[in-house]
Amino acid sequence: MIRWCLLICCAPLLLAQSDEIRTMLRNSQAAWNRGDLVAFASDYEDSPETTYVGREAVTHGGTQAILARYQSRYPTHEARGTLTYSEIEVRMLTPDLVLANGKYELKRTAAGGGDASGRFTLVIRKTAKGWKIIHDHSG
Amino acid sequence: MIRWCLLICCAPLLLAQSDEIRTMLRNSQAAWNRGDLVAFASDYEDSPETTYVGREAVTHGGTQAILARYQSRYPTHEARGTLTYSEIEVRMLTPDLVLANGKYELKRTAAGGGDASGRFTLVIRKTAKGWKIIHDHSG
Repeated sequence: MIRWCLLICCAPLLLAQSDEIRTMLRNSQAAWNRGDLVAFASDYEDSPETTYVGREAVTHGGTQAILARYQSRYPTHEARGTLTYSEIEVRMLTPDLVLANGKYELKRTAAGGGDASGRFTLVIRKTAKGWKIIHDHSG
Repeated sequence: MIRWCLLICCAPLLLAQSDEIRTMLRNSQAAWNRGDLVAFASDYEDSPETTYVGREAVTHGGTQAILARYQSRYPTHEARGTLTYSEIEVRMLTPDLVLANGKYELKRTAAGGGDASGRFTLVIRKTAKGWKIIHDHSG
């Protein structure tokens, strides 16, 4: 009974949070596809504790480190290709913490590196500057 | 100043949490290496919301689903090989939520599938039954 009451009371918050995160991801995808890596990197929390886990290594650092990483790996329009997120799932952990996962697909020419795809897990925290990614595992 | 006070007050809790998570992962590794997949799967929260993100797909389900998945993928001692976790990082999100990441390596014979390795992200929640994994991204 208490669980149901909590669920009913929290449902609007949960839906609002989920919408905000989905909007954030749509904007992130759009920023990538127009080549705006500064906007793309600004979704990450600007903190040395921010973690990015790739297939090979873990990197830490704020938006400048994230931006430098993306700029060196995806320097051209061809290398960036066209990004699409899909199969997005959003789970509220606390009112200020969200866990999201989904699939990314990069359509690219052979010269750009060819198509690539994988899955991501994001931990996203509500900060004074809005929702920010504090942990990204993409692989 | 407030941040420092908080840090000093929370430091013992943070260290205790980190120790508990590292112990949990050591036990998980030992369970795998003695072929005890039931103990290995019991570290996951027994809830339909528990998520497991692999390279190809996302699966949801409690310990029985997790156990069935591992039993079908790793049915023999040779297929399970010897598991080692390393480079473990533990970050406290709230007093009841922990984010952990690390590297896994599976030493296996060629017949067992050969060596494998990758990185994992875990979201672990303190429940009435102790710390339980609510999200695992391994890829």
